[in-house]
Amino acid sequence: MKVKNLNNIRHSLSHILAMAVLDLYKNVKLGIGPVIKNGFYYDFDLKASIKEEELPKIEGRMREIIGQELDFERKLWSRKKALAYFKNQPYKVELIQDKVKTGKVQVYKTGEFYDFCKGGHIENTRDLKNIAFKLINVAGAYWKGDENRPMLQRIYGIAFATELELRQYLKIQQEAQKRDHRKIGVDLGLFTFSEDVGSGLVLWLPRGTVIRQVLENWVIETEAKWGYVRVSTPHVGKEILFKTSGHLPYYKDSMYPRMKLDDAVYYLKAMNCPMHHLIFKSKLRSYKELPLRIAEYGDVYRYEKSGELFGLMRVRGMRMNDAHIYCTEEQAIEEFVNVIKLHQYYYDILGIKDYYMEMSLRDPKKKTKYLGSEKMWQKAKLFMHKAMEKSNVPYKIVPEGAAFYGPKIDFQIKSVTGRVFTASTNQIDFFMAERFGLEYVDKDGLRKRPVIIHRAPLGTHERFIGFLIEHFAGNFPVWLSPVQVLVIPISARHFIYAENITRLMRESGLRVECNQSDEPLGKKIRSAELLKIPYIVVVGAKEEVSNTLSVRERHSKELHQYRIDQFLELITFKIKTRALN
Amino acid sequence: MKVKNLNNIRHSLSHILAMAVLDLYKNVKLGIGPVIKNGFYYDFDLKASIKEEELPKIEGRMREIIGQELDFERKLWSRKKALAYFKNQPYKVELIQDKVKTGKVQVYKTGEFYDFCKGGHIENTRDLKNIAFKLINVAGAYWKGDENRPMLQRIYGIAFATELELRQYLKIQQEAQKRDHRKIGVDLGLFTFSEDVGSGLVLWLPRGTVIRQVLENWVIETEAKWGYVRVSTPHVGKEILFKTSGHLPYYKDSMYPRMKLDDAVYYLKAMNCPMHHLIFKSKLRSYKELPLRIAEYGDVYRYEKSGELFGLMRVRGMRMNDAHIYCTEEQAIEEFVNVIKLHQYYYDILGIKDYYMEMSLRDPKKKTKYLGSEKMWQKAKLFMHKAMEKSNVPYKIVPEGAAFYGPKIDFQIKSVTGRVFTASTNQIDFFMAERFGLEYVDKDGLRKRPVIIHRAPLGTHERFIGFLIEHFAGNFPVWLSPVQVLVIPISARHFIYAENITRLMRESGLRVECNQSDEPLGKKIRSAELLKIPYIVVVGAKEEVSNTLSVRERHSKELHQYRIDQFLELITFKIKTRALN
Repeated sequence: MKVKNLNNIRHSLSHILAMAVLDLYKNVKLGIGPVIKNGFYYDFDLKASIKEEELPKIEGRMREIIGQELDFERKLWSRKKALAYFKNQPYKVELIQDKVKTGKVQVYKTGEFYDFCKGGHIENTRDLKNIAFKLINVAGAYWKGDENRPMLQRIYGIAFATELELRQYLKIQQEAQKRDHRKIGVDLGLFTFSEDVGSGLVLWLPRGTVIRQVLENWVIETEAKWGYVRVSTPHVGKEILFKTSGHLPYYKDSMYPRMKLDDAVYYLKAMNCPMHHLIFKSKLRSYKELPLRIAEYGDVYRYEKSGELFGLMRVRGMRMNDAHIYCTEEQAIEEFVNVIKLHQYYYDILGIKDYYMEMSLRDPKKKTKYLGSEKMWQKAKLFMHKAMEKSNVPYKIVPEGAAFYGPKIDFQIKSVTGRVFTASTNQIDFFMAERFGLEYVDKDGLRKRPVIIHRAPLGTHERFIGFLIEHFAGNFPVWLSPVQVLVIPISARHFIYAENITRLMRESGLRVECNQSDEPLGKKIRSAELLKIPYIVVVGAKEEVSNTLSVRERHSKELHQYRIDQFLELITFKIKTRALN
Repeated sequence: MKVKNLNNIRHSLSHILAMAVLDLYKNVKLGIGPVIKNGFYYDFDLKASIKEEELPKIEGRMREIIGQELDFERKLWSRKKALAYFKNQPYKVELIQDKVKTGKVQVYKTGEFYDFCKGGHIENTRDLKNIAFKLINVAGAYWKGDENRPMLQRIYGIAFATELELRQYLKIQQEAQKRDHRKIGVDLGLFTFSEDVGSGLVLWLPRGTVIRQVLENWVIETEAKWGYVRVSTPHVGKEILFKTSGHLPYYKDSMYPRMKLDDAVYYLKAMNCPMHHLIFKSKLRSYKELPLRIAEYGDVYRYEKSGELFGLMRVRGMRMNDAHIYCTEEQAIEEFVNVIKLHQYYYDILGIKDYYMEMSLRDPKKKTKYLGSEKMWQKAKLFMHKAMEKSNVPYKIVPEGAAFYGPKIDFQIKSVTGRVFTASTNQIDFFMAERFGLEYVDKDGLRKRPVIIHRAPLGTHERFIGFLIEHFAGNFPVWLSPVQVLVIPISARHFIYAENITRLMRESGLRVECNQSDEPLGKKIRSAELLKIPYIVVVGAKEEVSNTLSVRERHSKELHQYRIDQFLELITFKIKTRALN
């Protein structure tokens, strides 16, 4: 079996798909049919609306065509011949006119089917016989991605060398769908969006706000131990701030538009750094104060194009686990290693095992996109490289994607379904202290520039909670669960006992609810399961008499009997230790 | 002694002040000399710069003039005569031209001094002989308050019927100055402002951020017990939101200017209500969910004129202890009474004893400034009135100052120095549910509008912490103190013992610092006193041997010996109970 070139296989399948659709439907105009990750698609313009249920029929026709063992033959036609042949295929004509200004037109022939095509095919359809492929869905797509052009119907297919791989792929897809943070966010009532507020602006509902708060308290507690102090800064600032930082003009397209007030032009902040720099600068600093680690869970606003917004993952308003460390050059590498260690500490607690760092450098072809001297860039790269080496965390170096004022290191974390998320961005910055005129008095009495480390280990609440939803499939560990315990009295006769237990738990600091509605027990349990509540406590006559609880853990059908003090001890221990299970 | 009309006395003193300045200085041009609260001032334009030290001399001259027992005589001059007489007093000429278009010009004569004046004087300066007065300072003031007109020198005086009252007033002023939150804010390193960020936008420094955080955590904990759920909403939203709420155009002048994005016009939020309403509306609500109490420490931005900004008291960016309660009409009064009780609970803990409520109604002369039906206004007034009656908190009703959509109740709290602060604004609102189309399904299956209660018991962090600084004169109770304990080793030999103690305290959750600098002990203690740290722990040989601490409480010179566990017990008990002392 030839599977050396999956791309050629997938591309050839897209032609076969076109042949099948031409066979089965009337008046089909063909768009394009490229290879994509894991498969292929083809765009069609036809009157009939192709439904999901029709895909197996099309797939069947494809298999028949494959059975005919047809060759893929390359032809070179004159422009005139090609345009004449495709005269009833307006999109093909447009493509030929776009792409072939002079010379020959390359066309691939399969049976009686001819396609204008840049090539990359198998030799004969018999090479497809053992290939595992499947048409997976059909969706609308504008011709050339332009919303002013006609909407075509795009049929997506996937193709793998073996049936096993195809099944694995489908399983992961299914899992990813089940874990989709947008769906779980709705199911668990974590967040919502509103057209009236605006795209990419999250409204955190009470249960989502609990997760934010618990994460944030954890961070505040942790970073206090790691020697950070906290500040709180405004969401707007004068233009001069962002001009000084260079974000205007270098980052202007990603900022919300200006607000003209009586005394100046103001901008919504897209980053917290300038504010923190001013706090550093608010008094004369001594080397004795360094490293000074200024932290803030800061809200920033960035303009992302509507088309790029995606659930919590790509938003316009975000709350960032931000901090800036001001230190001497001698302290910088150790401080940065500690930043990496802090990431590891957080990831450990959250059970995130699959991660690496990626250092992005200046794109050598676009040096005008960047500020700062060559020396500064080299030093920043060297320092960050040393810190990465010291940390023992795997890393990659990529030759583009730096910030405009220095290289950066992104932490890339992998979700259970294999998706990679950029969770945080970190930098050693030799640039901004100069711009903002930051200095400290050193041991020798001289004024020196501090090195600035930018870091944000948990990234933003938005993206990180989005990731955690997928990571845990909504089954948050008990310490992060919006509702930790649901108490269900079997009948109204046990309401008082249930209330007493609920109160006791609440007094122990648990997030507990009591379902006293008149729904049947089974329904109450089912709705608690849908909310993925870690513990369901059922109480009836038996429990009341023995002063106990029947506890049902999430994903278990078994009931365990506990004395209330036993259960409280168990659950508070789990919360205190931030146990994953 | 005639003290029936202090206003006339103060006004007459301003004339005497003008006479004294004319006697003592050359080429003096007179501005105006009105009565103000507690005293008077007069504005002068002269070349010499009058210094604070010269005020006693001017005061002495005033007493000499008073000793001459001069009459205050009212004259009515023709316009021509008046303008001729004042030809060398350009400000007087301008005033006469402004104010007297036709008819006579009223002038007051005292000895050889004539002033254009609307009147209100005593009969003879002998009435001033027993009056206690004092010139207190001199400051620049633009003519007519217009920064494009000349800057005059304004001399302020105070005057009271008795020496005792004057001394009391000065004492309170001195106390108010000592307690000035702007000064204490700098001394304790709580907050700062920056010209580059913008007027009225607070940068909270680490120690101020601790106070914010402790207050906020207390509120979150308290309001969870009082049945609130919490949300988190964006700082910007589309124009439509604020049009729906009526804030555009009714409140437009107090909002930051528009931001034009690709899909709509956005505004910085000046209030959290519209966002909370959308959260209420994000799903179909049942009567079973009511009262639904949605809380958020929300950041809002309001445009205040530069001239009106004042420290933390009047700012442009503020974080509000906000919540909206959605309930049935039957629940509204009880809910509002509970809101009042929540205020009392907070005030009790903070030792705020002097407060009252003020209900502001529609100004009957300006009905176009308001929205909503007559019936709605009457109902809101009735409900709020009933709740105030039930609460037993003293209240006033004032016939103007309502919000544009309903009456409001402000909590007015008095500081130690007698200043009154509006600490929070609360409302029962029958208007917004209709505007936002909010509804719930009632027992009878019908859809009804919820009543909305707006409440903010601790107001904003900015104003409330400003108040607390003055209230406590910076001596925050230990639970609110940014640094609770400072450990001072007597010499370097005790550094390790001091560090161990510091670590122990930190592990017990205390905010503790250890001063290991090589400054002398006395200096270390003094700087801790300046920072108003509640406990200074001194450790030397004696303490190390006996495994104890010497503890010096704030404002005490005495040292008390404690075992470490004793001290920890004492201080953690104070923190836990939020003790005032």
